[in-house]
Amino acid sequence: MNAFQPRTDDMNFILCEVLRAPAQLQALTAHAEADEALMQQVVEEAGKFVAEVVAPLNRDGDEVGARWKAGAVTMPPGFRDAYQAFWQAGWPSLACAVEDGGQGLPAALEAMLYEMLSAANHGWTMAPGLLHGAYECIKHHASDELKTKYLEKVATGEWLATMCLTEPHAGSDLGLARTKAVPLPDGRYALSGTKIFISGGEHDLTDNIVHLVLARLPDSPPGPKGLSLFLCPKYCEDGSRSQVFCERIEEKMGLHGSPTCVMRFDEAPGWIVGEPGKGLNAMFVMMNAARLHVGLQGIGLLDAAWQKADAYSKDRRQMRAPGGSAKAGEADLIEQHPAMRRILDAQRAWIDAGRVIAYRTALELDILKHHEDAARRESASRWCSLVTPVLKSAWTDQAFHGASACLQVFGGHGYVREWGIEQVVRDARVAMIYEGTNEIQAIDLLLRKTLPDGGAGLLQLLAELSDDLGDDTQGQRVRAQLDHFSAFLRERLLPRATAQDAPADLAHWLADDFLRAVAMLLMAWAWARIGATAGAEAPRWQAAQTGFWRWVWPEFDMRLAMLGASLDGA
Amino acid sequence: MNAFQPRTDDMNFILCEVLRAPAQLQALTAHAEADEALMQQVVEEAGKFVAEVVAPLNRDGDEVGARWKAGAVTMPPGFRDAYQAFWQAGWPSLACAVEDGGQGLPAALEAMLYEMLSAANHGWTMAPGLLHGAYECIKHHASDELKTKYLEKVATGEWLATMCLTEPHAGSDLGLARTKAVPLPDGRYALSGTKIFISGGEHDLTDNIVHLVLARLPDSPPGPKGLSLFLCPKYCEDGSRSQVFCERIEEKMGLHGSPTCVMRFDEAPGWIVGEPGKGLNAMFVMMNAARLHVGLQGIGLLDAAWQKADAYSKDRRQMRAPGGSAKAGEADLIEQHPAMRRILDAQRAWIDAGRVIAYRTALELDILKHHEDAARRESASRWCSLVTPVLKSAWTDQAFHGASACLQVFGGHGYVREWGIEQVVRDARVAMIYEGTNEIQAIDLLLRKTLPDGGAGLLQLLAELSDDLGDDTQGQRVRAQLDHFSAFLRERLLPRATAQDAPADLAHWLADDFLRAVAMLLMAWAWARIGATAGAEAPRWQAAQTGFWRWVWPEFDMRLAMLGASLDGA
Repeated sequence: MNAFQPRTDDMNFILCEVLRAPAQLQALTAHAEADEALMQQVVEEAGKFVAEVVAPLNRDGDEVGARWKAGAVTMPPGFRDAYQAFWQAGWPSLACAVEDGGQGLPAALEAMLYEMLSAANHGWTMAPGLLHGAYECIKHHASDELKTKYLEKVATGEWLATMCLTEPHAGSDLGLARTKAVPLPDGRYALSGTKIFISGGEHDLTDNIVHLVLARLPDSPPGPKGLSLFLCPKYCEDGSRSQVFCERIEEKMGLHGSPTCVMRFDEAPGWIVGEPGKGLNAMFVMMNAARLHVGLQGIGLLDAAWQKADAYSKDRRQMRAPGGSAKAGEADLIEQHPAMRRILDAQRAWIDAGRVIAYRTALELDILKHHEDAARRESASRWCSLVTPVLKSAWTDQAFHGASACLQVFGGHGYVREWGIEQVVRDARVAMIYEGTNEIQAIDLLLRKTLPDGGAGLLQLLAELSDDLGDDTQGQRVRAQLDHFSAFLRERLLPRATAQDAPADLAHWLADDFLRAVAMLLMAWAWARIGATAGAEAPRWQAAQTGFWRWVWPEFDMRLAMLGASLDGA
Repeated sequence: MNAFQPRTDDMNFILCEVLRAPAQLQALTAHAEADEALMQQVVEEAGKFVAEVVAPLNRDGDEVGARWKAGAVTMPPGFRDAYQAFWQAGWPSLACAVEDGGQGLPAALEAMLYEMLSAANHGWTMAPGLLHGAYECIKHHASDELKTKYLEKVATGEWLATMCLTEPHAGSDLGLARTKAVPLPDGRYALSGTKIFISGGEHDLTDNIVHLVLARLPDSPPGPKGLSLFLCPKYCEDGSRSQVFCERIEEKMGLHGSPTCVMRFDEAPGWIVGEPGKGLNAMFVMMNAARLHVGLQGIGLLDAAWQKADAYSKDRRQMRAPGGSAKAGEADLIEQHPAMRRILDAQRAWIDAGRVIAYRTALELDILKHHEDAARRESASRWCSLVTPVLKSAWTDQAFHGASACLQVFGGHGYVREWGIEQVVRDARVAMIYEGTNEIQAIDLLLRKTLPDGGAGLLQLLAELSDDLGDDTQGQRVRAQLDHFSAFLRERLLPRATAQDAPADLAHWLADDFLRAVAMLLMAWAWARIGATAGAEAPRWQAAQTGFWRWVWPEFDMRLAMLGASLDGA
């Protein structure tokens, strides 16, 4: 089994040619330096670090795994050294502000870095994966005192961070959290309670760990409005060990390189972050960043699986393929078999389109932060709000199902551990659950972000996608489909779903198919964009484009049919 | 985690009410005794054995697994005792002929037994899973001398059997096998070569193991026609250990309770089974039986996953459901959430329809063997030949993907090992590969069984399905779809795919979608049959039926669209 090798050529093509990121970024004062040469240089350097330092540890991450003993967690072999090298080289702070100790580079570069890292070693990447969200959360919500103490440590990644949300009795429903925060005389709060599913709650990668914890002040109202956010370090400023403990780590299907911790807070001192009762607001900053990152994990994991399957299919022979070239008594290469070719081309269609959509989302984050025009910032905000749940849900779903399809390319060898492909399938499964299950992403898209404004935001996004297309055949085809879906939305779905007499559960029945239909449209837009780019006439892009239209896109009509049946049946 | 408990009520409803199996079987002289009381009694007894003896060993099967040491394989705790109880109680020989030491009961009962066993403990069930195929192979192809020595031992399961096909350099392409068989003076042959992926190649369940081995006689032609079949026991008649060794067992994604062996034959003596050069013919008897059994594994594994998810969804609460009944500040049951309800109902639609199709296939096997009317035997043969690959492919695919959907019902808890649902997902994955990958099933259906007779057999099957339906609304709906697909087949697919100028690979591009479309039609037929049965007005059947039409059936039109695109593109 070979370790993962990032395909920086493909990534750069999407970023610089398809999305023309340098021109867009250089139009922002903050990123005037971000020309194509700089972008490519960073991506190449990142690719080298990922391939040389992080990828080789992936197998041990799975087989040795993180180990718990008496409250301490030992990470798999090499993980600590790799992490120390990672933060000391400045990678975690790539897109953090210069004044906070960061490098002030565009979010798109950070996105590409984390995609590669996830592909190379999902378990290891879980550790720094939450850093940027924690950084933004502290930067925007913490007091100046707290920022002085923690912001740079988190920006640089010298200390790692966690998100302590879930409690044993309540999974996705954070409003039911019971962890208590009791004021202490010194302005801090004593936190008591148990949190579960805490990724990286304990480890030996860094000298300190900064926990961001949802908890309830005394006399706070029940439900989500009674929740506040607290920062609780493993080691206090005076060097004393805080009363926060890892009680055990979960035995999981995969992702053994990342300890999933049960954390007990036993009057552990912490500071409040933001206002009392506004804990969820502050936390959502982290969760949105995290959802984009999980979507990137999906793309990365699918690419990891694809690369393994592609290499295997070019190396191994199996039976005679129709129109194959093998000599009598020999077999053809696996890649020559239509059923295998279909798997490879369809998965690559997902990877390529996913990159277009994810990198574009990262670009919109930079535009949202730095653009001078309020209308442009608004459209960037709309993009991030609507596209992030689609990216998270559809591409983590595809990471698992597509990795399983890639496993099929290996035949029986795919099921044995030797080739590493089954690890990708096991590791990828969790991303459909964490940071809001994929079903919650669908509810977020339809019930929280589409129905409340009568579909105005989504219709606007669809119109912008349409305007963004050229008049070539593919552009016209996609524009017609965008129009078709917009009409369906305006004329059938919205009137029925927002009708006074609509059943209370109607929109919930629609949500999953709705998200998938939007995912198909975003992919179609992405493929039209790729198709209209000079260089995309190369066979490598043409094969994936054909794969998209033949094997992926037909799902769109199926989702419309399912939506129609749910609307009619309601 | 509770061990699996078979739902014999559901299984009996399908067998006796929907399929009216007793009446059909009693019309055969060989099964005149098979009335409803007898059928139900056997199913209940089987259910008890499965639940009490086999199911409790499933977790240890995964966690301890089969272990190799110096050529010997130790099975997980309790496996040997359970197997000894199993064969001594007469379960392996349920459907074997009375004169061979069997009980002569219908194949449908054996099908139900193996479905339950697979659901309860897939790893354990791999051991006896090949017995019946080996029995048929020896019965129909071996010499009288060989039958005297081995038939009863295999029929009763006192000795277990293997199928030694695959070699390291050639997976699905058996024609490339190189294992040699050199004649010995006593009429036996010395077998030499290496076979891989041999399930149960070595273990401690039985005192002897009977290997059925594909090998090549000296001077035999290259390719599949040079292969002969041999029977090679682990212990020879004189008690001496044969030169057949287990070199190692594979480390796999799941199915740890079943040792997947690399077997080395080192001039091991064996007898020829059937004629020289006809090894594949004899082996196909085993493979067809095995494919039905693998389809049943798919149904069983999906049921195992469904039962876990169903129980969890009725026990745990999570967020507020639309129209839910929870008090303020509390959460609703998981089963009340539409996204979770959809998963549960859609998977049950697959399980129920799968049973109708699989049990019907088993009934047709009995009819094929015992019916007096040659035309009826011919239609039974057609059913088994065409439906078996569909059942194997579509239901093993669904076992994996549906088990993953059921895992989602658990949220984060589904990813940890505690609840046992992730084991089902890992175990189920292999069934998409072994006994002919699912892609090979699709090629079998279209290229080997549909195109060669110009579609006559399949069109006849579709017409018989249509004739079998009533004139109720659902019956009419399904009949219209059967007609629609038959017309598509006659007018578009067959003329194009069999045209002289058709590209050599066209049919290969169509095969996967073609199999899925046929699977959808079989499911629609099955649901029309269930719907027309007294008792199916109960909510349990109605919910699954609605699940089928809303969430499963829309795939049919998508597959037609994909087939159309492939035909047009060609």
